[in-house]
Amino acid sequence: MTAKILKNVRPMGAELSDLAIVDGRFAADAPEGADLIDCGGHILIPGLVEAHTHLDKSLLGLAWYSNAVGPNLMDKIDNERAVKTTLGLDPQVQSERQAILSISHGTTHIRSHVDVDTQHGLAGVEGIMATREKLAGLVDIELVAFPQSGMMIRPGTLALMDAALSMGVEVVGGLDPCGIERDPKGHLDAIFDLADKHGKPIDIHLHETDTMGGFSTEEIIARTKALGMQGKVTISHAFCLGAMDRAYVAGLQDLLAENGIHIITTAPAFAPVPAVRELKALGILTGAGSDGLRDTWGPYGNADMLDRARIVGQRNNLRRDAEVELALDICTFGGAAIMEIAHYGLAVGDTADCVLVAGETLAEVVAQPAPRKLVLKGGRVTARDGRCVLDAP
Amino acid sequence: MTAKILKNVRPMGAELSDLAIVDGRFAADAPEGADLIDCGGHILIPGLVEAHTHLDKSLLGLAWYSNAVGPNLMDKIDNERAVKTTLGLDPQVQSERQAILSISHGTTHIRSHVDVDTQHGLAGVEGIMATREKLAGLVDIELVAFPQSGMMIRPGTLALMDAALSMGVEVVGGLDPCGIERDPKGHLDAIFDLADKHGKPIDIHLHETDTMGGFSTEEIIARTKALGMQGKVTISHAFCLGAMDRAYVAGLQDLLAENGIHIITTAPAFAPVPAVRELKALGILTGAGSDGLRDTWGPYGNADMLDRARIVGQRNNLRRDAEVELALDICTFGGAAIMEIAHYGLAVGDTADCVLVAGETLAEVVAQPAPRKLVLKGGRVTARDGRCVLDAP
Repeated sequence: MTAKILKNVRPMGAELSDLAIVDGRFAADAPEGADLIDCGGHILIPGLVEAHTHLDKSLLGLAWYSNAVGPNLMDKIDNERAVKTTLGLDPQVQSERQAILSISHGTTHIRSHVDVDTQHGLAGVEGIMATREKLAGLVDIELVAFPQSGMMIRPGTLALMDAALSMGVEVVGGLDPCGIERDPKGHLDAIFDLADKHGKPIDIHLHETDTMGGFSTEEIIARTKALGMQGKVTISHAFCLGAMDRAYVAGLQDLLAENGIHIITTAPAFAPVPAVRELKALGILTGAGSDGLRDTWGPYGNADMLDRARIVGQRNNLRRDAEVELALDICTFGGAAIMEIAHYGLAVGDTADCVLVAGETLAEVVAQPAPRKLVLKGGRVTARDGRCVLDAP
Repeated sequence: MTAKILKNVRPMGAELSDLAIVDGRFAADAPEGADLIDCGGHILIPGLVEAHTHLDKSLLGLAWYSNAVGPNLMDKIDNERAVKTTLGLDPQVQSERQAILSISHGTTHIRSHVDVDTQHGLAGVEGIMATREKLAGLVDIELVAFPQSGMMIRPGTLALMDAALSMGVEVVGGLDPCGIERDPKGHLDAIFDLADKHGKPIDIHLHETDTMGGFSTEEIIARTKALGMQGKVTISHAFCLGAMDRAYVAGLQDLLAENGIHIITTAPAFAPVPAVRELKALGILTGAGSDGLRDTWGPYGNADMLDRARIVGQRNNLRRDAEVELALDICTFGGAAIMEIAHYGLAVGDTADCVLVAGETLAEVVAQPAPRKLVLKGGRVTARDGRCVLDAP
């Protein structure tokens, strides 16, 4: 038995208390002789949940990639497949680098999309699977098989998607059924068939805006309902829910709520985004993610989910403390609920995945993110003062 | 005579060289015995220019302000005037705290709006003027008299604006002529009269969106032209230039270019914003600013103009290296040109206001902002490794 007591800690900003951890879970009491950790009166939150990223894509640790890629989506997709070869990108090394950065910022759970295509096959899946073995106990990684280069427009990809799911990838990914695939019926039938065959949930990238995105959303809803997949389907990005015509969006959102479809936002500043307060009011589960970072798509990003909460807050114009706390909820409990993480939270019996953060209130924690004081995963210290206990390769 | 040599430095990311500084300016050569500063091969950029902030408003250094303010603009305006009294906010202390934070991030020039109203009179002006005396030689501060609580809707404010300008405030401010003032003709006539009387430029806050903002913009253009004030008028925020109808916006932008009207953006994620690439193409001078930070309006912000360049980049979807460099240009040369800062830059003869930054390329400097290695103001070291040489009060 291992036991710890977090002394002088404020769970979720509440009054000072002591929290016991026994065998990796929060407990009512700790036995004599438990390790004492003085938390200095700081706030404790549950482990941050990175619900949308691409561990196989980052160029962390490499020389600066000078980006001169064309402006269209297909330019970026084609360029990325080529650059992976020219740079000899190793998905195991890159995913380890990014995962260690995530841990340093207090992330305890990651949902990563991973490219599956006919040029690189399942190398990304294998690389991230190796990383998750290596980092077991430090961070949990869930995989989404992601047909980044298209499936309908790239024959052979569907069989690779099927193979990835057979290898243990947990979630079926998808991508702009109209915008990229040019065949919404074909694409959506294919990914829902995969989900049905493997008994796995879906998380589909939907960058399509306005009524094109709305059309794809309606088609996703129809299949979710027909297959009884309520609670098992997530739309990532969902830019169409940021459309100007709020009456139109309200209709879509009612259907999403009715069919238990979840939303994951990265809250980019340059695109329309789902309005998180509206989703909350409708009871639509909402998570958030960093998306890709420092990759061939763009130079930004830091894998910091507390900074992402700030971005969600600023993008949604959340100013009042209670609103700012919603941004934090999305980056913790929201993502955890979508990923169906068992025993998530700070209550007795929950897994001791938690982060000690600087700030007087939860709103300050989000609005003025500072290096994490301490990160625990299953009661084990994984980072201190913004540094992971492991060095990146 | 004082002399320094910056050894092993990459000006604007160029090849390694040595830069001489004599009596506070970049020089062709330094005399024997000059102080040597090894710059370790890092990139040097000119001092960052904070072209739009509110030094009198920040709550830096105080207990967390829990925000539960109403959603309307007038709620926030009325709340702020009240809170200044209940918290006993001292504009001198608050402006010093923020200015020192700015210096730590490499800012060498600040344009600060300062509230002028019938409740607090000229206390803000006096406070920031005391701070600029105190920080002379460390950072240059320019003031804009800002009728935050309205001028047409608050009789007595115009006389205070006039008094502020007589005291040495450099720029005439203004505010939403329709949205707040409800009297565009009255408001714009008043501020252009003040500018004409005092021979000073104008910098007007314009949050109005779409055609209401377009109407106010047309009225600003008409008065600029009538008074021959080309080159002396700036519109801050200019959310109307982010309107969906790009053909309509193009017409407005042509007129702005024709009349030498400048734009300062804070690139907020929650509002429409001017498209900086379009402004650049038209030759419209563009600067940027942090706006208010950690104040009664909202909890965000850090006074870091390199981080603001990143925000400008992300908000405008600048991904290619050459585009990302535009964001840096806006936060340096753009703001400097609008503020008519003499001898700004890294050329021989320019004032040695400069920042040594981490990063392999200019794009990395912007996209992945890291603590500034070294900041010089007129050749004098004002910050090292992200800390100002002065402590905040």
